[in-house]
Amino acid sequence: MGTVAPKFYLVGDDPSIRVPVRRVEVGEMNSDGEPITIDLYDTSGESMESGSSLPALRAQWIDDRHDTSMGFRTSAITGRDIVVRRAVEGSLPTQHSYAKRGLATPEMHFVALREGVPVQVVLDELANGRAVLPANVNHPESEPMIIGSRFLVKVNANIGNSSVSADIDTEVDKLLTAVMYGADTVMDLSTGRDIVKTREAILRRSPVPIGTVPIYEALQRVGGNPRELNWEAFRDTMVAQAESGVDYMTIHAGLRIAHIPLTVSRVTGIVSRGGSIMATWCLAHHRENFLYENFLEICEIAARFDVTLSLGDGLRPGSIADANDEAQFAELFTLGELVGIARTQDVQVMVEGPGHVPINLIAENVEKERDWCDDAPFYTLGPLATDFAPGYDHITSAIGAAIIASHGTAMLCYVTPKEHLGLPDAADVKAGMTAYKIAAHAADIAKGHPAALERDLALSRARFDFRWEDQFNLALDPAVARSYHDEALPAPAAKRAHFCSMCGPKFCSMALSRELREEAEISMRVKSSEFIQSGAEIYLAKGD
Amino acid sequence: MGTVAPKFYLVGDDPSIRVPVRRVEVGEMNSDGEPITIDLYDTSGESMESGSSLPALRAQWIDDRHDTSMGFRTSAITGRDIVVRRAVEGSLPTQHSYAKRGLATPEMHFVALREGVPVQVVLDELANGRAVLPANVNHPESEPMIIGSRFLVKVNANIGNSSVSADIDTEVDKLLTAVMYGADTVMDLSTGRDIVKTREAILRRSPVPIGTVPIYEALQRVGGNPRELNWEAFRDTMVAQAESGVDYMTIHAGLRIAHIPLTVSRVTGIVSRGGSIMATWCLAHHRENFLYENFLEICEIAARFDVTLSLGDGLRPGSIADANDEAQFAELFTLGELVGIARTQDVQVMVEGPGHVPINLIAENVEKERDWCDDAPFYTLGPLATDFAPGYDHITSAIGAAIIASHGTAMLCYVTPKEHLGLPDAADVKAGMTAYKIAAHAADIAKGHPAALERDLALSRARFDFRWEDQFNLALDPAVARSYHDEALPAPAAKRAHFCSMCGPKFCSMALSRELREEAEISMRVKSSEFIQSGAEIYLAKGD
Repeated sequence: MGTVAPKFYLVGDDPSIRVPVRRVEVGEMNSDGEPITIDLYDTSGESMESGSSLPALRAQWIDDRHDTSMGFRTSAITGRDIVVRRAVEGSLPTQHSYAKRGLATPEMHFVALREGVPVQVVLDELANGRAVLPANVNHPESEPMIIGSRFLVKVNANIGNSSVSADIDTEVDKLLTAVMYGADTVMDLSTGRDIVKTREAILRRSPVPIGTVPIYEALQRVGGNPRELNWEAFRDTMVAQAESGVDYMTIHAGLRIAHIPLTVSRVTGIVSRGGSIMATWCLAHHRENFLYENFLEICEIAARFDVTLSLGDGLRPGSIADANDEAQFAELFTLGELVGIARTQDVQVMVEGPGHVPINLIAENVEKERDWCDDAPFYTLGPLATDFAPGYDHITSAIGAAIIASHGTAMLCYVTPKEHLGLPDAADVKAGMTAYKIAAHAADIAKGHPAALERDLALSRARFDFRWEDQFNLALDPAVARSYHDEALPAPAAKRAHFCSMCGPKFCSMALSRELREEAEISMRVKSSEFIQSGAEIYLAKGD
Repeated sequence: MGTVAPKFYLVGDDPSIRVPVRRVEVGEMNSDGEPITIDLYDTSGESMESGSSLPALRAQWIDDRHDTSMGFRTSAITGRDIVVRRAVEGSLPTQHSYAKRGLATPEMHFVALREGVPVQVVLDELANGRAVLPANVNHPESEPMIIGSRFLVKVNANIGNSSVSADIDTEVDKLLTAVMYGADTVMDLSTGRDIVKTREAILRRSPVPIGTVPIYEALQRVGGNPRELNWEAFRDTMVAQAESGVDYMTIHAGLRIAHIPLTVSRVTGIVSRGGSIMATWCLAHHRENFLYENFLEICEIAARFDVTLSLGDGLRPGSIADANDEAQFAELFTLGELVGIARTQDVQVMVEGPGHVPINLIAENVEKERDWCDDAPFYTLGPLATDFAPGYDHITSAIGAAIIASHGTAMLCYVTPKEHLGLPDAADVKAGMTAYKIAAHAADIAKGHPAALERDLALSRARFDFRWEDQFNLALDPAVARSYHDEALPAPAAKRAHFCSMCGPKFCSMALSRELREEAEISMRVKSSEFIQSGAEIYLAKGD
């Protein structure tokens, strides 16, 4: 077997629904004597030649709904006209709206197959808003992805340039690295040169939903001074991004002017870029946040393209000391109010969360979000469980992420080793993704997700049987697992050996334990009843 | 300032008590206009020339107690006679015994100063057995270290060779790497060539307590076949190791023959090396574990040298599927019985724990250990929160470790990226240590330890003030933090810049937030009362 198991497609009743997986054939047989296969979740998308766009997988599904009309816009990259879809007057082309009407879209069937659940679960969760399926009608290249606490925990990878470092190919490379290592969504947070071109290149090449923070581009449009921002600049940016196909947008509408004084005594003030921009605007004009005041129109734009709103936590804590403070919770409470407004417009909506939170304060974040935001999917950045390890914040935050996801967070935004220090490169994207796939999977295990449990079980059985190739192929990162093993024992025969270099042949507990099991089987058949009796007695004597 | 802050000594009332720290002078003044300093915990020991032993820091303290007599043994390395201390007839030279008698030893004063607590807390915790201070009278080179849930969470690094890879200098190098990155104790798990010489070299160079698993050497003494083991071989090994200075020993006395059938239906059988060895012996002879049967004599040997017993969990789960099963808990219950026996002999004792445990089952391990083992310090290997990421098990297990430590585990045994795949090298030791210092620190933060909180606060204040040098110097790994920052912005001027390459100058939220704070101060002084009033109303209207 190769390093990466071959791609395979699960096909729905409708043959246009083809869910990609990586199929691993392990060295065990089922009771019918057939090889057991394990299908691994895969978001890497079709392999394409460099510079090519992905096929428009969802175009026919969207067209068949007859709720959008087509116009044209000029591509930022090619200069050619490309199709723009928007809702026809009076229609609501959002997945939330279809679910409320009890209509299962092909996108819903796709995610049901991908998650291994009945489509009715998908319909229910989307209808009541406990899940979102970000799928802009102008991003037909994306494979549908559902985000909600009853589904697999998702991981978002942030990419994007800054004014210090900007190159379109580099960002596309980061996108491909992110999805190669399992990113479920990707946010393009570019703030440097060529924002529009970079986003366009990413969208056309992305098999996963793409998110943005439109206030960044709006700020560029007004020359970079937050005080010059205005609703019209924001609205025009949002429409342009929706037309290009952005699937979800972070909107910092919950940071109200009245919350700003609550941040004055904080250790690290306002650490959200969008939050600090909006706070600067509010105080400069002594006016309420224009995103809050125009939130209904924001919803109307979002509905037209089925853009999912991600309500930004502009006041998230930037240090342990500021966690769960009044400023943070005042904004979270306002986000709950905005969730209610979005729902009245049939707009899909999720809620963003912190940030830096010590382990003992993590659960409260999920509890308050569920309570105040009516179970809207929670989408958290980490949180980092300590401030003291810059350079290792993929780990400080994977700890917080695993905990918050096991409490019910639906999607985790990764943090890379470069957090607080510099712009991540492709190696950092990989490091962030692997740490976060671990956090998400650990939470799926804690929540008892059958697909997660199946994979761990298959890998552990392979481990106990010394099926090294199966162990590598079922691993999160087969290439790394294989290379670590082969450092000390590269010979092909070592792939069948009942030990590795950690303990050597005589001290391998698994080898001893297997031997023991075989040797003991006869003896135990005789003795086991008395053993179990006395063992159980000892144990139960004081057991609770 | 350099990469590593200079070493400094906190001196006790008794000037022979000198606790090493790394003193960081940060760019802030206190109210008296003096520079603020932060003392960072440090276990790296004295710098020595290659091949030299450390000074015998504790020798005078031990001699002054007049409860040990001196003999001689031949050094495995130099062939020269070296001093061996053992209890004089009728004396109990254990720290537990002194604490029970209300006598504070210099070792206790040392750890009180190191931990920043009154010596009475140390006395109380040692007296009631909720903490241990592993300090063999034959390891006078070690700096005293306390392990208990009321103190800083400790991290143990496993080193040691295997038959596949064995070299004494390599193991000393791993020891020095481990303590450089903050190991609180180190276990030498060698099973390959030169077990005795390797251990001797490690002990004479180690500033931290050293642990071993004596059954490994005992097995070598009988030719490597577990069936040939016997009590006499074990006892002789234990005495020899105690004479050489081993501070704590893992004893697999809790795995009773009656527990073995409980492992038959496990996915991964018995994964502890010591556990699989003892189980093999028990079944081969159809006899009860000789370590269980001779546990009282084990305690008598331990008391003679003040060896701390670490009760091994030979039946820890080796996969998520086996977590918290009957076999594991039957053994844990037996360990509680052995804790009681050790206490009657004034022997210091701690209890080892798993292993592989999903997040939702972690707390139960701590609860049962506390209940059944009468609050003896819990010492856990991870646990790994998922099985699916060989190559990244420092991360899968740091997640479990942070959680279990926040519930009260006293010491964490690290896991390196090579776990399940091969023998760790020095780079793996560093990767394991950094992940585990993060886990331990995150737990200290969650438990509200003042020293942990102080460090995070100082680092976050430095971050918000753009004091880059302070941020690096306060970081877990200053060299890595600095190098990540400098990748994109190497110029000296960038160390004073109010941004990094992540966001660039115009999108730095911290810079905006600082500006905001300064600009807003006048305006807010006027407006703040009305802001706070309205903000507080909004928040409190629905707040719980």
